[in-house]
Amino acid sequence: MTTLESIAGGATAGTLYGVGVGPGDVRYMTLRAAGLVSTVDTVAFFAKRGQEGNARRIVAPLMTDGRNELRLEYPVTDEIPASDPAYRSAIAGFYATSADALAAELQAGRSVGLLAEGDPFFYGSFMHMWRRLSERFPVEVVPGVTGMSGCWTRANTPITWGDDVLTVMPGTLTEDALIERLSRSDASVIMKIGRNFAKVKRAVEAAGLTGRAVYVERGTMQAERVMPLAEQNGEIGPYFAMVLIPGEGRRL
Amino acid sequence: MTTLESIAGGATAGTLYGVGVGPGDVRYMTLRAAGLVSTVDTVAFFAKRGQEGNARRIVAPLMTDGRNELRLEYPVTDEIPASDPAYRSAIAGFYATSADALAAELQAGRSVGLLAEGDPFFYGSFMHMWRRLSERFPVEVVPGVTGMSGCWTRANTPITWGDDVLTVMPGTLTEDALIERLSRSDASVIMKIGRNFAKVKRAVEAAGLTGRAVYVERGTMQAERVMPLAEQNGEIGPYFAMVLIPGEGRRL
Repeated sequence: MTTLESIAGGATAGTLYGVGVGPGDVRYMTLRAAGLVSTVDTVAFFAKRGQEGNARRIVAPLMTDGRNELRLEYPVTDEIPASDPAYRSAIAGFYATSADALAAELQAGRSVGLLAEGDPFFYGSFMHMWRRLSERFPVEVVPGVTGMSGCWTRANTPITWGDDVLTVMPGTLTEDALIERLSRSDASVIMKIGRNFAKVKRAVEAAGLTGRAVYVERGTMQAERVMPLAEQNGEIGPYFAMVLIPGEGRRL
Repeated sequence: MTTLESIAGGATAGTLYGVGVGPGDVRYMTLRAAGLVSTVDTVAFFAKRGQEGNARRIVAPLMTDGRNELRLEYPVTDEIPASDPAYRSAIAGFYATSADALAAELQAGRSVGLLAEGDPFFYGSFMHMWRRLSERFPVEVVPGVTGMSGCWTRANTPITWGDDVLTVMPGTLTEDALIERLSRSDASVIMKIGRNFAKVKRAVEAAGLTGRAVYVERGTMQAERVMPLAEQNGEIGPYFAMVLIPGEGRRL
């Protein structure tokens, strides 16, 4: 019988792997991603200060003792707005240092799996490493199930039907921009809720979409919460929260 | 050592599984999806007349002889426009018959894995079965890597950075609607290219985006093709083709 391990394949020395680890539940990692996490010489991941790191937590069931790990720790949290020059400066320096640390591993001939939440090329930090390293080293990107797929799965709702147009927008947009985008789309996903929650909720209401809107927090992770947006109150949501407006396109 | 099989888990009698099989490469199936394909009593899938079925082809490396398979064969192909009443009528009847066939399996106490290309809740046929069966039988939906993730991975380009807004639109929109949506989005994915290819190419040009546009055909499948949109000519593309306009948001 074919084992999943044999399909997943292994890692090549001196190669950087951008490993999409999916939305949170380890079972939603791809065979290729799971195979790489089990075999690369170095497992690298981003984490906030004082936290385990979300990507690292997702792959925990695949990790054995004694693996070589490279923890890349953010110097700031998302309490500072991304528009603040101090944030941008600190993060840019951190990314440069992180890329140097990854390059040192690769130059030493080790294979490196850099974990990326969701899909590596859909938002997120991996792309900032890819941008700095992909011309100097061999890179393989492994796509992953996005966080938003995990959220609409757990909300138990198809997101797009037939010829629906889907808009994925960050909660950082202005309230007017959110209203306008929501009003013009058949289906929407609003990401990066966090401190934008109250504004997002007002925008959904102004667009007349509250009746269809679903709030999902930590989709597929432990402590997941799913509820109609109308039932979620408060000013600030967690980082891993999304608002979904499912489409209503062609049913056959 | 933990085997991937043990993480993937098995199937429960009388349960319908919506199994996202990802974009094409079997390695991009999730552990849960692969585990289910290996263990359900019946593997069900949609296919066009005279063809193997794309989802069935994707899971072929996981299938062993003697498995119980339920082939659901479309009565029409996408040569007939979805707006044609004859198409709608034929497809609606087909979906009703297909749901009956799945229900018979479930009622007999068998676990059924219905394969869905990409992610089950992101366009596609699975949702039409889910709509008919999810109130009568236990259903588990397994999210998958979308076809568009597979395409931007193989195009070797991040699709969204920072606060980019992403619009996913079908090529079936009118040319004016395509131009307008493209002009207002930071990043775009145009799906369902097929017979809409020439119109889509004109719309991308009119929106001033040809320089950034990538054409991807059968991303992660055999016979995959990736090229700048400007280099792809002709009137009609295959069904599994997309046009990507990568975002240019915040680089740090």
